[in-house]
This record gives sequence, C-alpha cells and structure tokens, in this order.
Amino acid sequence: MSTTEHEDESATSPPRLGVGMVGYAFMGAAHSQGWRTAGRVFALPLRPELAALCGRDRAAVGRAARQLGWAAAETDWRALIAREDVDLVDICTPGDSHAEIAVAALEAGKHVLCEKPLANTVAEAEAMVEAARAARERGQLAMVGFNYRRVPAAAFARQLVAEGRLGTLRHVRVTYLQDWLTDPASPLTWRLDKSKAGSGALGDLGAHVVDLAQYLTGEPLVGVSALTETFTTERPVPEGSGAWLGSTGAGGRLGPVTVDDAALFIGRTASGALASFEATRVAAGRKNALTLELNGSKGSLSFDLERLNELSFHDHTEPAATSGFRRILVTEPEHPYLHAWWPPGHGLGYEHTFVHQARDLVHALASGEQPVPTFEDGLQVQRVLAAVEESAAKNSVYTPVPQQTS
Amino acid sequence: MSTTEHEDESATSPPRLGVGMVGYAFMGAAHSQGWRTAGRVFALPLRPELAALCGRDRAAVGRAARQLGWAAAETDWRALIAREDVDLVDICTPGDSHAEIAVAALEAGKHVLCEKPLANTVAEAEAMVEAARAARERGQLAMVGFNYRRVPAAAFARQLVAEGRLGTLRHVRVTYLQDWLTDPASPLTWRLDKSKAGSGALGDLGAHVVDLAQYLTGEPLVGVSALTETFTTERPVPEGSGAWLGSTGAGGRLGPVTVDDAALFIGRTASGALASFEATRVAAGRKNALTLELNGSKGSLSFDLERLNELSFHDHTEPAATSGFRRILVTEPEHPYLHAWWPPGHGLGYEHTFVHQARDLVHALASGEQPVPTFEDGLQVQRVLAAVEESAAKNSVYTPVPQQTS
Amino acid sequence: MSTTEHEDESATSPPRLGVGMVGYAFMGAAHSQGWRTAGRVFALPLRPELAALCGRDRAAVGRAARQLGWAAAETDWRALIAREDVDLVDICTPGDSHAEIAVAALEAGKHVLCEKPLANTVAEAEAMVEAARAARERGQLAMVGFNYRRVPAAAFARQLVAEGRLGTLRHVRVTYLQDWLTDPASPLTWRLDKSKAGSGALGDLGAHVVDLAQYLTGEPLVGVSALTETFTTERPVPEGSGAWLGSTGAGGRLGPVTVDDAALFIGRTASGALASFEATRVAAGRKNALTLELNGSKGSLSFDLERLNELSFHDHTEPAATSGFRRILVTEPEHPYLHAWWPPGHGLGYEHTFVHQARDLVHALASGEQPVPTFEDGLQVQRVLAAVEESAAKNSVYTPVPQQTS
Amino acid sequence: MSTTEHEDESATSPPRLGVGMVGYAFMGAAHSQGWRTAGRVFALPLRPELAALCGRDRAAVGRAARQLGWAAAETDWRALIAREDVDLVDICTPGDSHAEIAVAALEAGKHVLCEKPLANTVAEAEAMVEAARAARERGQLAMVGFNYRRVPAAAFARQLVAEGRLGTLRHVRVTYLQDWLTDPASPLTWRLDKSKAGSGALGDLGAHVVDLAQYLTGEPLVGVSALTETFTTERPVPEGSGAWLGSTGAGGRLGPVTVDDAALFIGRTASGALASFEATRVAAGRKNALTLELNGSKGSLSFDLERLNELSFHDHTEPAATSGFRRILVTEPEHPYLHAWWPPGHGLGYEHTFVHQARDLVHALASGEQPVPTFEDGLQVQRVLAAVEESAAKNSVYTPVPQQTS
Repeated sequence: MSTTEHEDESATSPPRLGVGMVGYAFMGAAHSQGWRTAGRVFALPLRPELAALCGRDRAAVGRAARQLGWAAAETDWRALIAREDVDLVDICTPGDSHAEIAVAALEAGKHVLCEKPLANTVAEAEAMVEAARAARERGQLAMVGFNYRRVPAAAFARQLVAEGRLGTLRHVRVTYLQDWLTDPASPLTWRLDKSKAGSGALGDLGAHVVDLAQYLTGEPLVGVSALTETFTTERPVPEGSGAWLGSTGAGGRLGPVTVDDAALFIGRTASGALASFEATRVAAGRKNALTLELNGSKGSLSFDLERLNELSFHDHTEPAATSGFRRILVTEPEHPYLHAWWPPGHGLGYEHTFVHQARDLVHALASGEQPVPTFEDGLQVQRVLAAVEESAAKNSVYTPVPQQTS
Repeated sequence: MSTTEHEDESATSPPRLGVGMVGYAFMGAAHSQGWRTAGRVFALPLRPELAALCGRDRAAVGRAARQLGWAAAETDWRALIAREDVDLVDICTPGDSHAEIAVAALEAGKHVLCEKPLANTVAEAEAMVEAARAARERGQLAMVGFNYRRVPAAAFARQLVAEGRLGTLRHVRVTYLQDWLTDPASPLTWRLDKSKAGSGALGDLGAHVVDLAQYLTGEPLVGVSALTETFTTERPVPEGSGAWLGSTGAGGRLGPVTVDDAALFIGRTASGALASFEATRVAAGRKNALTLELNGSKGSLSFDLERLNELSFHDHTEPAATSGFRRILVTEPEHPYLHAWWPPGHGLGYEHTFVHQARDLVHALASGEQPVPTFEDGLQVQRVLAAVEESAAKNSVYTPVPQQTS
Repeated sequence: MSTTEHEDESATSPPRLGVGMVGYAFMGAAHSQGWRTAGRVFALPLRPELAALCGRDRAAVGRAARQLGWAAAETDWRALIAREDVDLVDICTPGDSHAEIAVAALEAGKHVLCEKPLANTVAEAEAMVEAARAARERGQLAMVGFNYRRVPAAAFARQLVAEGRLGTLRHVRVTYLQDWLTDPASPLTWRLDKSKAGSGALGDLGAHVVDLAQYLTGEPLVGVSALTETFTTERPVPEGSGAWLGSTGAGGRLGPVTVDDAALFIGRTASGALASFEATRVAAGRKNALTLELNGSKGSLSFDLERLNELSFHDHTEPAATSGFRRILVTEPEHPYLHAWWPPGHGLGYEHTFVHQARDLVHALASGEQPVPTFEDGLQVQRVLAAVEESAAKNSVYTPVPQQTS
Repeated sequence: MSTTEHEDESATSPPRLGVGMVGYAFMGAAHSQGWRTAGRVFALPLRPELAALCGRDRAAVGRAARQLGWAAAETDWRALIAREDVDLVDICTPGDSHAEIAVAALEAGKHVLCEKPLANTVAEAEAMVEAARAARERGQLAMVGFNYRRVPAAAFARQLVAEGRLGTLRHVRVTYLQDWLTDPASPLTWRLDKSKAGSGALGDLGAHVVDLAQYLTGEPLVGVSALTETFTTERPVPEGSGAWLGSTGAGGRLGPVTVDDAALFIGRTASGALASFEATRVAAGRKNALTLELNGSKGSLSFDLERLNELSFHDHTEPAATSGFRRILVTEPEHPYLHAWWPPGHGLGYEHTFVHQARDLVHALASGEQPVPTFEDGLQVQRVLAAVEESAAKNSVYTPVPQQTS
C-alpha cells in the first residue's frame, strides 16, 4: 500500500527569507530564476520566498509576477520596502535609481542585493557604501550583483590564482564584445540615455569586466588611459517614447545617443601588471564575448563567456614538450557549485550564475558574514569607470584610480 | 501609495496539470527542474503542478520531495498512478521497470512521459507501443524522453535538414564518449547490471545518439554491423549491496560486469547514407562528448554536446573561397525555444532540455496532438540496439533493423 | 677588405646521393621539395642530388624537370633505373606500376623509396617485400612513403604512446575526410579507375590512416568489419581520355566509377582495443580532415591534420579539477625535427613531411640501418585494405587480417 | 629506349637575378628558403640565384653559405654590395645596421630587400625612404620585409576588406604574444639591447602587427596612447659577450635590459575606428600568437598566426539564424598564392611567407613596378612606434602619428 507524506514544513523546512524585487525586465527574470531555483538544487539554511515584485505599470507587473512566480505585486518601491514579509530587497532597475532605493531599503532595515553597476556615479556609490556600513552594524547585509563571479569557471580561476598557480602577474587582457548596436537602425532605448544608464558599453559591459578582472587577480586597477567612441550618434526613437528625445528623422524621429558605443582602456594593476580592456556593442558577430586572459610568471588562464563551462589553463612549470593550454571542462564535482548539479560534461548556462548568487547570499545571511562582492567592490569599479571617462575626456592621459582607504 | 495585487489565480491562471513522477535520482532531479521552470519561462496553456513523487525508501523520497519541490511523496508507484491529482505519470526509473509502470499508468487513464531508453527489450517496447496506441484512442498521450532533441542547436539542425540545406545525405558520424568507467576501481552500480540496465554504453549512450541521428536525418537506420566490448569484467561491489554479486576481491568484494563498456557500429540509413556510431564510457578525458556530423551533397552540420549552444554549418553551395564551417551561436530569438530565454550569446545548459521537453509536452496535452518522440520512436531505437547486439553476437555480420509498418 | 670563399665542396661536402624520380604530378612535386630542402635545413651525412626525373611525355617531363630542379629528364623508367648517377629510385606513380618499378630498381642495385600505397594488391606487395628482403642482403634499402608519420605531432604522439603515457589502449578513432568528389560533375580521373588506383578513398586515404594508426599504437589491426559505397557511379570523362571509358552522357561522355567513394570499418587491434576508421571523398566542407584519437587507461591523444602543428593530450593521471585536453603546439626544439626549423609557434606545413622523410631516409642510407616504414609495413596495410574489401563483399562479416610471421 | 634531356638553360630559362644577402641567423635562414624555393614552385620571370652570403665571422659564414645554398661568402657587406653578380641586396641584420647598408646598396645601384623593422629610428627610416626614392628614378626598387602580408589568409583578408565585405570599420584588435622572456634567466641577447634592436617587443613584434593592421585596413593609425614595461630589468650575460654589459650577478654576470618586455597601446585609424595593440614576450603559453580581429558595419574578420591556414569571417548581412564566424581553410586554388601549392587542406607553414615575398619581389623587378610594402610603409610603421614611445614617456597622453604628405 501507499504512504502519502505531505510535506511537514514546520518540522523540516529552514526558516523563510522573504524577497522583494524591484524591476522585472531582463535582470528581473534572471534573478527570479535564481531565487526560485537555488533552494531546489542546493541545501540552503534559509528558504527564499518570492514575496513581492515591484514595477510602475500595474497590469504589467501583475502579469510579470504571475509569470515569474512572485506571490504579490507592488507599483511603488517604497511600499515594497515597507512590506513586513520582505526581508531582502533585490534591485533590478536601471542604474539611476539604485542609490535611492538601496539607501532607503537599508534604512528601512532590509538586506539589499543591488544589480551592477552599483550606481551611475561615484558620489552615489559612495553614499551607498556609507549606508551599507551603517546597516552592517545593525546586522543587515548588502551585496552587489556582479554575477559573473559565480560562473564556476571564473570562481575556479580565482582559486587557481589565489593558490599561486600563475606566479607573478604580468598581463590582464579583457574584452567584452557584443554586436546588438551594429545596425544604426537599432532603437534608442534607455540603455542609450546617459541620464538613465550613466554610460554605454562602459557601464554595462565594462563594469562587468573590471569587477571580474579585479576579482580574479585579487588586485585593483590603479590607473588607466582611455578612448571612448559613439559611432552612431542618433538613433530612431521607439514608438510610445516621450517627447524629450530630440530631432525628427526622415522616416521617423531620431534622438541623440548620449552614451558610448565602445570604450577602450589600458592600465596597471596594483602589483604592476599591464592590463587592457575593451567594451563594445558594435563588434559584428560577437554576441557575448567576454574574454579574459591572465599571464603570470608560472602560468596563464584564459576564459570566454560564450563557452562558459570551459577554462583554459597553461602551467608554465611543466616540461615544454608537453605543455599547452588545457581545456578544463569546469563540470566536475570538485569545481565550485558543481557538486549540486549534473554529471561531468553536462554544462550549465548563463542563468546559473544567478542561482549561485542567491545561494551564496542566503548562506551569508544565515551566517551573518559579509557577502561578496561588497558595495565597496562596486564603488571601486565605479571609480575605475570614472577614471576611464576622465582619461577619455583629457586626451587619454594616464589617470589614477583613487583607492579606498579602509 | 502602494497597490498590492495578490495573484487572482482563478481569473488568470491556465488549467492545472498534475504531474506524478517515479524516481528521483539524476533523471528525477532533471525532470523536476523542467517541470518547475517550464511555466515560469514559457507561456503555457496548462500549469504543471508537481503533485507527487514516488520512491521506495520512505525517508529518502520525503527528503527528495521537499528538496525538489513536490507536494507529496509516495512509496508505491501503483499508489502514485491511482492518485486523482495526477494527470501525467513521468517515469524516471531504471529501464527494467519502464514497461510495467508505463502500461499500468496508461491503463489507469494517465498520460505518460517515459525516460529513455523506452525499455530494455524490443518485446517490452512493443507492449508499450501497443498500450500507447490503445490509450491514444482514449485521448491519452505518451512520449519518450529523448531530451537531446530539445537542445536548441539540435532542433535547429533538424530544421536545416528538413529545409533541404544539406541536399542528399551521404554520411552520418556520431560518437557519445564518456570516461567515468576508465578507472577499474569504479564501483559496480545498477548501470553495470544487465538485469537492471539492459545494456551498458549501448543502451545508456547509444540509445541517445541513435534517436538523435534518426531524428536529425529524418531517416531510420536499416542495418548495422557491430562490435561491443567489456574491458573491465569485474568491479568492486558498493557497500550495502546485496549478496547476489559474485566473487570477492582482495581489498573488497568484486562482482561481474554484465554489460558492455563500449559499442561500435556502422550501418546504412533508409536513403543509403553511411553511418557510424560509437558509444563508450572509457574514453579518458571525454566527459559528455556527444558529437554528431552529417554530410550531404549541399552542406554539412556538426555538433558537440560539450558546446551545446553552438552548431557548425557548412553551406557547400557557396563560393569555395569564402566557404567553411560557420560557428552558429544558437542563442538568437529566431532559434528554437530561444525567444523565451536570454539575449544572444547568453547560453543555456543541459537541464534546459528538460524545460523544453516539459513545454512541448504541455502544448501537446493542451492541443491533443501527439507529442514526439513517440513510443514508436522509442521502439525503433530499441530495434536498432537489438540489431547491434545481434550483429555483435554473430561475428559482426550486417544485421537488418526491422522497420515498423505503422 | 672582403674575402670571397667559394665553396670548396671536395673538402667539406658530404658524399653525393643521386636520386632518380619516376612521376612528377602532385607527389612528384612534393618529393622534389623534400629532396631539394632536406640538406639545406638538416645536417645530412649524404648530399641528395636531383639527378633525373622520369615521365612518359618528353616535353612535359622536361618542363617539370626544369621547374622542379632535376638535372636531367627521362621518358622510360627502365632508363632511369639504369643511370649510373642514380643511387636511389623514388617512385611517385599511380599504384599499379609500383611493384614492377620497385622490383626492377631493387634488382638493378638501387635503393628504393616507394609512395604509398605500397601496391594495389597483396600479391604485388608480397613480391615487393620479397625483392626488398633480397636487396637488403646486398646492402640496399627500401622504404614506403607514408609521409604522415613525419608530421612532428604524429612522431611526438608515437613517443608519448611508446613511453606509456596512455596506459592500456582502449579506443582508436580515425577519419580521413575530403570533399572533392562531392560534386557529381567532378571528372573521372585515374584515381577513380580501379585498374590504375586499386581502390578509391580506401586505398588513397584509408591506407594513410591505417598505417598511421598502426604506427602510433605500435599494434597491428587483427580484424575488421566494413562497408564501402560508391555514391556517384558515373562521372564525366575528361577531354582527351581514351575510348575505353563506357557510355556517353547527355552533355558529354560519362564513364563508370570503379572504385569506392567512401569506406567505413571497425575492428580490433592486437591488444584488444576497439578501432573505427572512415575514409571518404564526399564529406562536404572537410578538406583534409585526417583526425585521430587514441584513448587509453592513463590518457588520450587527439590530432587533426588540418591543424598539423598541434597535438591534444589528456593526462588522465592528473587531478580531475585541472585536467583536460591540452593543446600542445608541436613547435618546440624538443619536438621531433623541430630543432632545425623555426622558433616556437612558427608552424610547419604539409610538405615538411617530405623533407623529414628525405632526411630520415638519408640517415638510414648513410648508416645502413633499415628505414621505416618498411615494405613489410606497407604489406601489412595492404592486408588490412584487402580484409576491408573482403568484409564489405561478405555482408560486413568480421574478417581477420593475416599477420606477418617473420 | 630512353631519351635524356639535359636542361638547355640558354633556351628556356628566365634571366638570372643575383641575390646577395647580409646576415644568416633566423631571418637569413628563412630568406634563403624563400630564394631557393620561389622559382621551383612558381613560374617566375627571373631566376633567383643565391650569389653570395655575408657575415663577419669567416668560418661561420662559410659554413652557413654551404648549408643554406649560397654560392659564395663575404665578410664585409661593402664587398657584397660591390659584387657584379649581385643585383639585389637582401638585408637580414639587426635593425641598427639597416639604414647604412640599405642606403649604400641603393647608391651602389642595387635593388634592396630590407627586413623589418625598416630601421631603429624615424630619422634612419626617413633617410632610407629618401635613398629609395632617388634609386627609384634610376630604376632600382626597394621593399621592406613585412612577411606576414604574404600569409595567404592575410592576403585574402585584405581582398575581403578591399571588396567592402566589412563595411565601415569600427574596431581593430591586435595582439602579438610570445613567451620566451617569461623566465628571468633567459639570456641578455642583442634583442634586449636598445643600441642594437632599437626597442623590444615593440619593434620586434609591434612593428609586424602595426604594418599588418595598416595593410589589412588600408588605413594608417593617426594617434596612440601607450604603456610600455620592462618586467625583468637585468638578465644573465651570455658567455663570450663583451665587457660592456654592466653588473655581475651571483651565479654569473647580469646586464641591464634596455628595451621593453611589453607594449600596450590604443589609438584611432584615419577613418575613426578604434584600435588596440599588444606586443609582449612574457605571455606564458603563447608562442607566436599574432591575433587580429577587424569589426565593421557589415562583417568581421579574425586571424591567429598559430593557425595560419585559417581565416574566420563573419558576414553580418546574412540572416541571424544561420550567421556566425566561418572557419575558412585558406588552401583553395582561388586563394592568394595557393594555385601553385598543394590540394585543399594541405596547409602551408611560416616559411612560405618568404617564398611568397621572393615571388612577388621577382615579379616587381621584372615588370619594374614598385613592390609593396614600400620603404614609405616601413617609415609609417616607424612613426607609429615612435609615437608609442613618446606617449609612454608622456604619461600615456594621446600622441598623433605624423602622416606622410606625398
């Protein structure tokens, strides 16, 4: 005969963690997948609950909440923050609202996860760090969502670097290439509006790779020399956009692009390694080519986000005749996060970074330990981006990146 | 002020589909991820509900149900089938129990999704086809879980073949290489026991690639010549295993491996193309290397499951000077399943095949159309595997594969 | 002031080796490059001199001799053999004339280098082995031109296998894919005429990979099961061809293709490893895809002739977390032949195999040691090809390969 | 009976071109291979004859001449230039002697081929351009040896760009990575001495890639911002070196490295595309990684010298679903230089660039047309390198590259 075991949650379930999320576009969908899945794959000390989703359009946010699995919907982020069933506020809006929401949420006693970039300006980021420090003393935690640290290959690369497998670092070589703005007819979305997005490829893609490079090397960038460029200076205004967007084109209204299409910069890390960075949205044929290579005195690492289950590692201490870049499939149980997933060779995808992010944050919340990347990490990235813009504005002169003192 | 919209499910939600699943190991976890996620990513006409999970060990199945998100647990699959809240039975057990459970579930009026291989023998598979045909007339649907058809690159490859982009087919070249049995000390699990698994690499890996090759080409295999081999004939019995497993080794009991480590076969498709297949679990360094190449008079396709977001396509009608295998990142909104996922280049992983499988099955159930792969497809694969075993037993002589007369 | 040193050859040059070559098409040009270059790159104990070139068309062979750097031209191979300034006869004709020329040259007291395949039949190959053994006792040497053994990556792979880096061999997986017969309008050359070529892809491409696999593994194939196919059975007769070629097509005469387009076979090596082979000229998009993989209990090797400066090596004894196929650039001074060439990473090409072949043969001639591959090696390949044809003719039944007894 | 045709050179051979070469190290060996081979593979209007080789050490140059196939040896380059049997002087010495030898040779009425970089300074390069212009009016030709333009894939890439297949250029992304200075114990050769080499990675590797980028794009660089670095500032003095090399180390004398290990620069092309360059000799595991990518509004190209027979091309005007970087094997008869070589897929190597260089130069000499790259091209590269050094010395400020006015 059969035995039905209705789950006795009171007896066995971990405590609840109420999550409230602001924003439900690309990032909102990705974070939702992370929150829904983390506790189903990993054994978590807290049970994330998708308590409420917030967006300005009532009908749209309601549909999104049902689709993505959120129990309730809100149209004002202040109301979301005020909810008693929300312990953590997850901010997935454009960068111009990060500071206001994050500071308010922290002041309201909530934990905060904020999407990258931390803010659109250094000043905003500094205010957020300030708020996070104050909240930390009250037991609240804040974290910024540089999700690529949670690609298993990246996390494993960090382990190899930290173990000294590369020796003294000589070169950091990074690109983040996309091509969705190659076509001049691609529309003028909020991502091309400086007031919303802060910058273009620099803030969107450059922020990712600056954080990733600093994380993997364990070193900050200390100075940069930069060029930025906007190849297409006007683009079609999408239908339904407001009147704020400039001139009218022949076959439809055109508006000014106020951010960069591409940013190119070189610099030095704290230990003196040379570093090069490129972020662009007009590299035809490159869809999501975050490539990264580190060369050290004892070895090298190479990674390509378009093949995110792989890490290339060259051990320079081996005999020359049999040495070479080895293609490690980062899908072994020994690799970060992989014990909970599938057998070797059964790869993960992009969204798993958000599952891992949720997992790590839940562990931090349960233990009370500060999760990484911190708001300070986000501020450091912001300072690099600001130095890039300053250098680009000053004839590419080498521009120091102010370092945090604490 | 804020507006809370508690989800009004009665008004907006699609009808419920109660799923009951038998088995909760590797495949059970993967199917759970599929059922949990499909409705959150795709707009589905039915709402899958993880009603009940079934396994023999009461405590273990209870834990699994809580972890994986199933509302209830059962210890007898007959009880699971009998549940009123179960509309579809999803069978994730070893192959020796597929026929019994599937036939019983169909006779009990349930829809059935059965993991591959459909069965361990042709006779079992034929009985299942019989039961599925009878059920079909009652409006029930049955499908076999060859999930690799739902890798977007594979689904897109099928489109290209069906559109005639390869012309007349000349060659089919397939391997499925793993290496987890390379070490002779790897334990004697149920997968190495013929009474449970039916066969070794042949049924486990070969079944996948035979189905995939037949699906992509749109042609059945009509005859094969085969070699099989068991390189390691005895392996350590895992602790806690029953007494049925043979002799005792020096540092622990050894038991006989009763299935193949590797199977190699060549053959012809219905249209006369030459085909080669290799399935092995002892290819050191190959983790999940399902590689597939098709050559036709007008073009070629190449795929590697270890890089599942990519498809290589050579268009032989192009000028020679600029032709070559192009690496298509199968992550564009135009590609199968991709409209609902992430932007170009943000790759998917292994488990997404189960999300897509759930999606397609739900659509079929809502429309009443027969989903693919059918039990007949599973039977056809079984007949190929039987012909392989027959050829291997008869000095590799070319052995016809009996074709279904519909 | 300057000092002119006209080279004093009598004082410093090594003894002369007069080479006479029969045939000046593709292989003749490649061998010429080998003979011209070997002594310029390597320090050789004998100085190869391109004494005379032989071909049937007087004007054409004269032009070829001038172009390729041969001092004289002959129109009768018997005259070439008879020349006193010829010490070594290099046979680059189609396979049907190999036996006659080689046996005659050996009987005339010359050393012989014979292009692969050694002959078109086992009987011819046996006669050549017989002649070579007799000549060996007189101090003459004979060698067959399986040039791919002299790809540095292949020679290095052999070293790794011989050192035991792969452990016990499990799998041999080989393809040789070309596509120049994909188009049915491709003309009916001598390579498609069984009386000249012996067989099609089997003898042309299959001979290469059978020899290479046997060389790398150090093991003969002991049995095979095979399928062969001719997809295009009639092709246009090239203008100027004789009347012997069958029927007339609509827009030009068609003649029968009497050899295979493709051959597929599986088998076992002497130690019990499973092996698969495919040779084809109709794999659209594959230009010269000789791919080879070996899997053993301790490691694996992978090679692709289209990237001939690279060898992939997986060491299965390494920790799983950092193991993977490493891409070795076989361009280090430690690698076979490379000390005499360019700095690391400055790759070699196809024709270098002929330079290396000339170098190794010259060293053997100077030392009197038997060069490899021997005529016996060529005969062993011929026996494998014969077993393939026999199996294909007998319903693919497993067909033993007779082994040489001495 | 046989007919011997001793070559009647007077009747059929093209006119003689006497070549005299200065230097016989790495570059000398490579150029020798080019001069020996060009006329054997290509039909040339002049017959290159290796008349005399020049080097300072009488015994060594004599050995080199015999090994490499030069008819005579000289120990004073002025004597070489004075020889009547020398029509063309090929300069393969370190950069510090290029100007003096080239100017003298041109003034002596000889044609000149000068290895890259054209000179060590802009002033020297300007003097050489001056001399070349004067000589041009007397019918003499001068060319600089940027051999990578003659990689078939590079020449074909130029064709595609010139045909407009990339549209408007957006990005140029170039690296030239080697690793032979990774080890601090690597000796202090002339290449690390500024007085001989001019600069380090910048002049050696950077010169190559600057020329190649300007050639492929058809555009000069107009400004740069740069960082350079010497990671290892002292290295062991090789035995037998003179006393001029500084301090003494513990286990042997150390001397100062006076050139850069690595140079990193970003800039703009004339049309406004962004460009990034990296040249280094300390990128562990990268042997000869000259990688180059161009992105335009209609397509992209990618190349890697370590796989020099391949070119990757993305056509952005194709449907997104089937577009992607295609791997073109640049081995078809339609590709530059390939009609004279081997069948498709039978790749070429590094040294073939020198064969092609010799071929193209001989054609130019026969026709009287100016060969490329010209000394002006070499000067333009030198100006870029000077701008790089100036920017690096001036805090990376953006530094214009003076453009040639004629």
